[in-house]
Amino acid sequence: MKAITRIEQCLAMALASAEDPSCPPKLAGAVRHAVFPGGARIRPQLALAVARACGMDDPRLSEGVAVAIELMHCASLVHDDLPCFDDAKTRRGRASVHFAYGEPLAVLTGDALIVLAFQTLAAAASQSPLRLPALMHIIASCVGMPSGIVAGQAWESESRVSLMQYQRAKTGALFVAATSAGALSAGADPKQWQALGDCLGEAYQVADDIRDVMGQADLLGKPVGQDAQHDRPNAIANLGLSGAIAHFESLIQAASDSIPEGPNAKSMRGLVMQESERLVPRAACNAYRASDSHTGANSGTNQSVSH
Amino acid sequence: MKAITRIEQCLAMALASAEDPSCPPKLAGAVRHAVFPGGARIRPQLALAVARACGMDDPRLSEGVAVAIELMHCASLVHDDLPCFDDAKTRRGRASVHFAYGEPLAVLTGDALIVLAFQTLAAAASQSPLRLPALMHIIASCVGMPSGIVAGQAWESESRVSLMQYQRAKTGALFVAATSAGALSAGADPKQWQALGDCLGEAYQVADDIRDVMGQADLLGKPVGQDAQHDRPNAIANLGLSGAIAHFESLIQAASDSIPEGPNAKSMRGLVMQESERLVPRAACNAYRASDSHTGANSGTNQSVSH
Repeated sequence: MKAITRIEQCLAMALASAEDPSCPPKLAGAVRHAVFPGGARIRPQLALAVARACGMDDPRLSEGVAVAIELMHCASLVHDDLPCFDDAKTRRGRASVHFAYGEPLAVLTGDALIVLAFQTLAAAASQSPLRLPALMHIIASCVGMPSGIVAGQAWESESRVSLMQYQRAKTGALFVAATSAGALSAGADPKQWQALGDCLGEAYQVADDIRDVMGQADLLGKPVGQDAQHDRPNAIANLGLSGAIAHFESLIQAASDSIPEGPNAKSMRGLVMQESERLVPRAACNAYRASDSHTGANSGTNQSVSH
Repeated sequence: MKAITRIEQCLAMALASAEDPSCPPKLAGAVRHAVFPGGARIRPQLALAVARACGMDDPRLSEGVAVAIELMHCASLVHDDLPCFDDAKTRRGRASVHFAYGEPLAVLTGDALIVLAFQTLAAAASQSPLRLPALMHIIASCVGMPSGIVAGQAWESESRVSLMQYQRAKTGALFVAATSAGALSAGADPKQWQALGDCLGEAYQVADDIRDVMGQADLLGKPVGQDAQHDRPNAIANLGLSGAIAHFESLIQAASDSIPEGPNAKSMRGLVMQESERLVPRAACNAYRASDSHTGANSGTNQSVSH
């Protein structure tokens, strides 16, 4: 079975367990709307790929980690789309949760998904309960305070923010959770896999910034030009488009180089390259570079990002 | 040391662990505002009282349960006060979180507190990790879908709602979590303590409805008359004030009767009676009854609540 198929199955099972007839029907509907149909499911796929590379001796636990991370991601999308943040009317190519179900249910949907993420993880730990406390610590750290995705979103309310700290918390943290918890779910050392999550997370955020400017709404599944509109810190403002593309490519290389040697290292590297192509197609980069060298067009300031 | 003092210490420790200098300062401030100064801390006190009655062989775990439940409660207050729900400007006698810090940080504060609750619980389970999965299941069930406090709040978005189902989810669930998880944290059977949480939770909700009508804003720490203003299902609309008072008293009696026999049963019963007096002072009830019998005033319809 393809990994993505298994992930969809596991997500459906996690939601079914919460969709008892006693659940308020609109809440159940809004939660389903937030999770299905999904995006690329890149974080749970990453968690499972790392778990497989580490031997995956407890598939149920690794799947629980993958589901928990995807549910956290879905929760963050629902809350980030709220009127008090982005007020996004669309997400994944259709109505955002608050647009479809109203603001109260969108707030509660995010809350319910965070709870369900931990509940699913705990239920998946019956064979390896001793791994649960550390797994919870990894996932909670990457979601909450001081530097998880919730903290990342909170940086948008501060007048001063470091681009790196913001992006690492808002986007990178959940990629670190995916690689670290994926490894730990298979009994491996999570620290060895942290750099992969770190590099991929930053690459993913830079790719998002690039596509926000390139205007590929079909790839983003949400409106373009949001960073400039909301005056959010972003890589383009710091590096310009060509600088951001070069930075993206160096991050993908660093991600690939960070993969610990082992029987599955080669296939993991292939997966990273495949994801890179999906995020920012090489052909689009080359086309931009060609036009850029002809016109000299570069709207950015080419400041370097501090690391 | 008094239980309440220890609870405040444990809450402070839980927040300190998340208040790294790398945390966005406004988020850290808003989270602190949501937790300190607290209310009566009735739920964590209940959890610890039950744990003590069950022998409390792992005080750190029992304290972790108490803190997790209080943080969940604080999270629910912050989100319930949001403009899209009650739009409450005050809470616990001072500005609500969204009024003091703005709506975006209030949404994120609730999220961060839910995550911190689970993180604190996991960190407290190092001596008894095998109890963690079941503890998480109890707490997650009492917070999330289908019938935890999040689901309780979601019932307000439905056109049809059973008063019992609504109140049991919105308020009762966290009392059940306190008694059940308190017992389990000490290695006891959580089922034996579920009825106590059930009865106390309903009693607490009915008391809240009574005080909302009696106008004791000083006891509530929030504006009065909110139930009628927001057209929320409440016990007064169903039973009238004198019916609600009688119902409250029968629930307290049932709570006391449900306490399993044991060396600490008597002190637990004393605690229940003490809490009853704090919630709805007997003198106030007697005064109301005296005036009611003179005037025949009873604004309710005396419908029975289905159980």
